[in-house]
Amino acid sequence: MTNQNTSAELADLRSRMRHSAAHVLAEVVLDMFPEAQLTIGPPTQDGFYYDFAVDTPFTPEDLKKIERQMRKSIGRNHPFVEREVSRSEAAEIVKDNAFKLEILEGIPEDETVTFCAHGDFEDLCRGGHVESTGQIKAVKLLTSSGAYWRGDENNPMLQRIYGTAWESKDAQQAYIDRVAEAEKRDHRKLGPQLGLFFFDSLAPASPFYLPKGTHVFNSLVNFVKDLYGTYGYQEVMTPQIYNTELWKTSGHYEAYHENMFTMDVDGREFGVKPMNCPPAMMVYKSDLRSYRDLPIRWADFSRLHRYEQSGATHGLTRTRAFTQDDAHIFCTRKQIGSEVKGFIDMLVSAYKVFGFDTVRFALSLRPEKRIGSDELWDEAEEILENLLSEFGIEYERMSGEGAFYGPKIDVFAPDAIGREWQLGTVQLDFNQPDRFGLEYVEEDGSRQRPAMIHRAMLGSIERFLGVWIEHIAGAFPVWIAPVQAVVVPITDRNNDYCHDVAKSLAKSGVRIEVDDSSDRMNAKIRKAQLQKVPYMLVVGDREQETGEISVRLRSGEDLGSMPVASVESRIAEEVADFK
Amino acid sequence: MTNQNTSAELADLRSRMRHSAAHVLAEVVLDMFPEAQLTIGPPTQDGFYYDFAVDTPFTPEDLKKIERQMRKSIGRNHPFVEREVSRSEAAEIVKDNAFKLEILEGIPEDETVTFCAHGDFEDLCRGGHVESTGQIKAVKLLTSSGAYWRGDENNPMLQRIYGTAWESKDAQQAYIDRVAEAEKRDHRKLGPQLGLFFFDSLAPASPFYLPKGTHVFNSLVNFVKDLYGTYGYQEVMTPQIYNTELWKTSGHYEAYHENMFTMDVDGREFGVKPMNCPPAMMVYKSDLRSYRDLPIRWADFSRLHRYEQSGATHGLTRTRAFTQDDAHIFCTRKQIGSEVKGFIDMLVSAYKVFGFDTVRFALSLRPEKRIGSDELWDEAEEILENLLSEFGIEYERMSGEGAFYGPKIDVFAPDAIGREWQLGTVQLDFNQPDRFGLEYVEEDGSRQRPAMIHRAMLGSIERFLGVWIEHIAGAFPVWIAPVQAVVVPITDRNNDYCHDVAKSLAKSGVRIEVDDSSDRMNAKIRKAQLQKVPYMLVVGDREQETGEISVRLRSGEDLGSMPVASVESRIAEEVADFK
Repeated sequence: MTNQNTSAELADLRSRMRHSAAHVLAEVVLDMFPEAQLTIGPPTQDGFYYDFAVDTPFTPEDLKKIERQMRKSIGRNHPFVEREVSRSEAAEIVKDNAFKLEILEGIPEDETVTFCAHGDFEDLCRGGHVESTGQIKAVKLLTSSGAYWRGDENNPMLQRIYGTAWESKDAQQAYIDRVAEAEKRDHRKLGPQLGLFFFDSLAPASPFYLPKGTHVFNSLVNFVKDLYGTYGYQEVMTPQIYNTELWKTSGHYEAYHENMFTMDVDGREFGVKPMNCPPAMMVYKSDLRSYRDLPIRWADFSRLHRYEQSGATHGLTRTRAFTQDDAHIFCTRKQIGSEVKGFIDMLVSAYKVFGFDTVRFALSLRPEKRIGSDELWDEAEEILENLLSEFGIEYERMSGEGAFYGPKIDVFAPDAIGREWQLGTVQLDFNQPDRFGLEYVEEDGSRQRPAMIHRAMLGSIERFLGVWIEHIAGAFPVWIAPVQAVVVPITDRNNDYCHDVAKSLAKSGVRIEVDDSSDRMNAKIRKAQLQKVPYMLVVGDREQETGEISVRLRSGEDLGSMPVASVESRIAEEVADFK
Repeated sequence: MTNQNTSAELADLRSRMRHSAAHVLAEVVLDMFPEAQLTIGPPTQDGFYYDFAVDTPFTPEDLKKIERQMRKSIGRNHPFVEREVSRSEAAEIVKDNAFKLEILEGIPEDETVTFCAHGDFEDLCRGGHVESTGQIKAVKLLTSSGAYWRGDENNPMLQRIYGTAWESKDAQQAYIDRVAEAEKRDHRKLGPQLGLFFFDSLAPASPFYLPKGTHVFNSLVNFVKDLYGTYGYQEVMTPQIYNTELWKTSGHYEAYHENMFTMDVDGREFGVKPMNCPPAMMVYKSDLRSYRDLPIRWADFSRLHRYEQSGATHGLTRTRAFTQDDAHIFCTRKQIGSEVKGFIDMLVSAYKVFGFDTVRFALSLRPEKRIGSDELWDEAEEILENLLSEFGIEYERMSGEGAFYGPKIDVFAPDAIGREWQLGTVQLDFNQPDRFGLEYVEEDGSRQRPAMIHRAMLGSIERFLGVWIEHIAGAFPVWIAPVQAVVVPITDRNNDYCHDVAKSLAKSGVRIEVDDSSDRMNAKIRKAQLQKVPYMLVVGDREQETGEISVRLRSGEDLGSMPVASVESRIAEEVADFK
């Protein structure tokens, strides 16, 4: 608990410091550009911004000057002083600023209106500052860009300046290093660079997978399918386009309609499916089910489509088109425990393969917008809580974060640079089986309602791939690397021999290329390293003579010379041992 | 040439005979149901029908009586006599029949109006009969059902009687046998029966694949992917939903727009892709290509959607959603020959695996609605003609049947009951690379336009599966059978041992089930046979004691007793040898 308090206190300090830094930024901008109009300037996750109405965008030189002036203001250690003002007085103060007037009008009648000053500067503000500017220990302006007032493209375009502020120079440097490292690992940059995928505005937020990306994608799917063999899942394939009546039955229509691609077909509304659960219901209902059939575990790798505002999409981690490693389990009440346990076991073992060794669990409880009776929710939540305790799994309770049809356990994993990602999920659903009237014949001949478990291990393959690329900085392990080895001839006269070596290794299943371009050897090695190819096999006259090849790893490590057969068995071992 | 003439003559005789039979049918119906109104009665591929306006549908007993009366009329051997009448006279004759008046109005002014009589019966008719009713050597009524006038559901509902007529009793019997055999093999019946797939009106004409069907589908795809490894293809994956600007560029918009599922996204028209070629262009254009990269062979197994009128869809063979084993080859002019040859070789060898041992080729030439200059069409058609001659492949030339962007070679295969199916296709396209401005850098540094080859081997996986199920009557070969063996315990006390046997075989990769239901042994064997399971392993006390199992094949053949290991190696051999 102590740790939590400290981290909550730190978060509060950072938020107040960044809000204060935004005020200092506004002070300096107004000083340097007296015609600028102030609008809003909130703290953010890692910093702050302020939006200014100005005629011309800020230049990088402006930002440098502004930052210098901000340091001076901070050095003067002005205290932040709040004062309450009447609405009429406030309106008089901001009368020349239409944005502030609009903000003022938006303040509820029962709230007091306050201004906050430091030095000669004052801004309409609800408060939440450090005591004085001197408590802003480290500040840095990052970028500036256009932003519409209230985020609406029909409103005037403002200029937003982003900055960051920290409790110490060290904390700030650590943040800057983290950002630089994240940029280097950005899957949106590595994807095209490694020949994995690209995007095109004709199909917004929908990845085009190049051959290497398709290989990795298919390998992930096959990895999951292999596990499904072990854990007793079967695969089904369901259509993508349905009469929207389907989602009216399931209850998704109300919650998801705005995020669905819909169209008119023969005068009826049809939609492209955004999730696989309702089709799973249809498969269940296509036959009479007996208690002897349960549990049924049906995987469905159909591609899904969800409309997202173009501003909300982000590389592979938030797309309009994606594939989940989705499965639905239909089981009796008694089987829920072992099914959830089986899934968590599979997930934890699978994540280790990808280098996600520690995971965090959260239990998301009933949201405000939901279907089904409170009794069913009570039962479902209790079952999951009891299971987590029973399994000895630590978890956080998250109120209001459940799916609209049931509570869920979400799985989070931290990546190599400390960011945490939500990946897998397992959700308990008593409501949809009710709405679809699912039944099974019990041993005594009675009709019973099955429980439904929605679960995804990697989550969306797209999102997982995006996160994983950043986690491993694009250096895929040997078992899944699209190209496992590149043969590098030292001179042209080694080309033929290099192709022989490659053919021999390819025969034993090694994914291998020969770089017989006209580049020089060092350039070829550098290129292979940039492509994150695990093995570089360098072959010159001496190697050709002795039949050995000189082996380097992408890490830079030089393994020296060895026979082709040794390279082959080394790679084969790495592939076999990947679990 | 002789054969062709004879078959054309026979087709003409059958058509005239069936048209004549429709007249005899109308004569008898009018005799038996004087209030009936005649409408139309054409010959069809295998018979004829006549649509009647009547108050109540015909019963099966009606059909029997009508058929008896038809035989009598045929026995009287009335000659068919045509006479020309004026339009006013014709209108007077049919004045009480609104349908005939409508037909009469539809006859172009410059055509003469004729009636055709046999005996006391006369009908408005453009002619085309046998000389007399006696030349209808064999006739049979099949079914009757409702049909809208002119096929339009806003028009009155008529009653259609279907019949068939042949030049001999033998030909008729052969036809009836063929229909019965086709019904037994109907994939729409076998699909649900064998637990492969089903359809649901919420997703019209879009298959839901059950676990067994998914297994077969995936096995077909993996079979093709394995061949792609051998033949140097790579796989890409492209989005499904695009701004329709894409198809305006490719030229598909005009030709395909009506068959596309389109929708509004952010105020622009988007569509679900009906084919993979334009996305393949986008992948090509995503990077600079060199002559050293060519030929590029990109497979794309994306699911495609085409709107089809609900009346035009048919099981798996004509769906709204399907997956092609599609690939696009980008190559130089010089590489076209070896690429087309490589594809045909792969196709012919692959078809043998599925029992399609003989194939027929057709060369489809420029259609009326097309893009591109006549010069490009001349060149593309000449290349394909020359290639076919060079390869020594016999083919039929089909005028006007090409794709709108280029000529194509279509591949037809006859199934086990003599029906021929169009499956694979290879299409040469100089036009789309032009429209997308594709280029590669030639050895001399100049920019050149690549040729594009569109090709699908199985065609659509859905359609191929539907055809293949009918070809093999649902009895999948061992390598792909969803369940390869069923263990049948003779009594309950053999159940545990049966599960041990199954587990041991499953470990070596055999797809196996145990039928431990309460059914009797013979019922279990019959069930496994109906499920077309290749191996039935019967185990009783004696088998349990000796460790051998009694093996039966789905054909009914009894292989006697053998050790479990022998069954295992037998199945493994069949799987390994399937090519």
